Amino acid sequence: MSEFWSPVVHALKPYVPGEQPKLTNLIKLNTNENPYGPSPRVLAALQQQVADTLRLYPDPTGMALKQAVAHYHGLTPAHVFVGNGSDEVLAHTFQALLKHEQPLLFPDITYSFYPVYCGLYGVTAQTIPLREDFSIAVEDYARPNGGIIFPNPNAPTGKLLALEAVEKLLQHHHKSVVVVDEAYIDFGGASAIPLVKKYNNLLVIQTLSKSRSLAGLRVGFAVGHPDLIEGLERVKDSFNSYPLDRFALAGAVAAIEDEAYFQSTCARIIATRDVMSRGLQDLGFEVIPSAANFVFARHPQRDAVAIAQFLRERSIIVRHFKLPRIDQHLRITVGTDAETQALLKALKALP
Amino acid sequence: MSEFWSPVVHALKPYVPGEQPKLTNLIKLNTNENPYGPSPRVLAALQQQVADTLRLYPDPTGMALKQAVAHYHGLTPAHVFVGNGSDEVLAHTFQALLKHEQPLLFPDITYSFYPVYCGLYGVTAQTIPLREDFSIAVEDYARPNGGIIFPNPNAPTGKLLALEAVEKLLQHHHKSVVVVDEAYIDFGGASAIPLVKKYNNLLVIQTLSKSRSLAGLRVGFAVGHPDLIEGLERVKDSFNSYPLDRFALAGAVAAIEDEAYFQSTCARIIATRDVMSRGLQDLGFEVIPSAANFVFARHPQRDAVAIAQFLRERSIIVRHFKLPRIDQHLRITVGTDAETQALLKALKALP
Repeated sequence: MSEFWSPVVHALKPYVPGEQPKLTNLIKLNTNENPYGPSPRVLAALQQQVADTLRLYPDPTGMALKQAVAHYHGLTPAHVFVGNGSDEVLAHTFQALLKHEQPLLFPDITYSFYPVYCGLYGVTAQTIPLREDFSIAVEDYARPNGGIIFPNPNAPTGKLLALEAVEKLLQHHHKSVVVVDEAYIDFGGASAIPLVKKYNNLLVIQTLSKSRSLAGLRVGFAVGHPDLIEGLERVKDSFNSYPLDRFALAGAVAAIEDEAYFQSTCARIIATRDVMSRGLQDLGFEVIPSAANFVFARHPQRDAVAIAQFLRERSIIVRHFKLPRIDQHLRITVGTDAETQALLKALKALP
Repeated sequence: MSEFWSPVVHALKPYVPGEQPKLTNLIKLNTNENPYGPSPRVLAALQQQVADTLRLYPDPTGMALKQAVAHYHGLTPAHVFVGNGSDEVLAHTFQALLKHEQPLLFPDITYSFYPVYCGLYGVTAQTIPLREDFSIAVEDYARPNGGIIFPNPNAPTGKLLALEAVEKLLQHHHKSVVVVDEAYIDFGGASAIPLVKKYNNLLVIQTLSKSRSLAGLRVGFAVGHPDLIEGLERVKDSFNSYPLDRFALAGAVAAIEDEAYFQSTCARIIATRDVMSRGLQDLGFEVIPSAANFVFARHPQRDAVAIAQFLRERSIIVRHFKLPRIDQHLRITVGTDAETQALLKALKALP
């Protein structure tokens, strides 16, 4: 608390990311990182950036990356915004596109950064309860709003909303921006990006931190109608001219271009997820069908915090959210096969 | 223009950075990049980051970098904030510390991003004219204010404010945050960082883009009383958990630690600046004494835009600002000795 703080700072409730412990030999299943490293083509591209040219600013427009994303999705660079991780892209989106007179709508159980952005930018919001089974009821969004945002698959449930339902939302709310936050879409969902050409109110946000194995590089992007993208660019150019450094730009382009590596790592994670889900069910857990690189599960007879603590004592870290409706669930990242077996073995030993 | 934009977006006048042309064989003296590449120790540290560990998030607190900066300046990590370039640090500073009922004060000729941040965050501002010789008149700031910010040396003039004058400002405005933006301080000025222990209203911002040759890596930091730093952290943690990627963190630590390389490149640039200043004066230019890695100069008989165009046709790019009081000046980055000689030779051939 300080007299020097701007008024907004006093009321902020910052986001708390999953811990990044310094210990080695941990089985780290708490922040949804990819168990497989980035593609060899990415490492080669990064290698080239270790050079004297680091004395020069990067391209402030990130054009090479915009072109790579646009080409991948059959769009133009004017449809693409790039940022320093999808969290930065989300922040700019809240400020540039989601602050209106009517409240922003998002699910009651969702990415816990959304209410934080609302606090930072003074965005009024209303939460819409998920159904009992944690699915999004699109009909419940039929009320006056200044925008809609949700992750798909949802976080931290991993539950997918079918593309038809997403399209229904877009049609029923054609006067509002609908943001689909697809951080985990590559692990089994159908992206809404093909709908961008049809709906000028759709913004899709993705990250290279999960399916592209680049959490350490900080790259995210948004895809939408050029008018939406221009709104984001105006905010970005009023905030930081060069948000992506030379490594981020070069590594991200190479990651987008290496389709074979991307497909194979995603397929491995999906296969391991199935093993993990069945293993957890065999141990009595209730597992929400996941379309992400994590599963969200609870044990009807066991306390979630106690389970997390039991695992931690065995050097396995999972994520628990002390939040209404989900404080008996655990979010467990899909690791390697070996990590998954270690997890299941540890849980089998629960007293 | 779009109905989907938040109201603030319509009124934004984004910052326009110096161009980053794709052409090679240019003599690029327009964005104050360091003519010498980063230290070999920095390249070695970056090399180590080209690895599988990129799949993992970086340290969200940037603690290793905070420790390096704190150690360098004899402070603690609680005195240090780190960000994705000093522009991001500045943006958070405007939002976290400079938005108050009374107007923010800054010079009429200054870093042209300041009014842009004011627009982005709704900060009321008043500009205080520099004296005729472009020096800051600290007595003119004696009016009600919610904060004071200025670059030292000033941009784009390169003119230094003596540390005694900075301290006078701090004493006379002990109820306001005084931000000293020291992007260019290492090229001949005395930093205000030693005053941080004495004045809890002082925030000093520096960048690794200029004197540390790392414009391509995007790292900046702020140093101040822990209460000011906490205000910045709260905004940062409400915006982006991981603004610095693994390369930025590792490279910045190595850059701060390689004192010998840093001192030797700064000394070379200062020596070349003296040659360049004298050479310009010999050609009839009026040169403002510079404490930065650029000079700000005008020719009494020649139009600045025409000179810039003449140089551009000879593949030399300098920066011109179409702004009141300085539209007959050019800002010319100090390059290598060879680049400086090429610049002077080209100017000698002015028709």
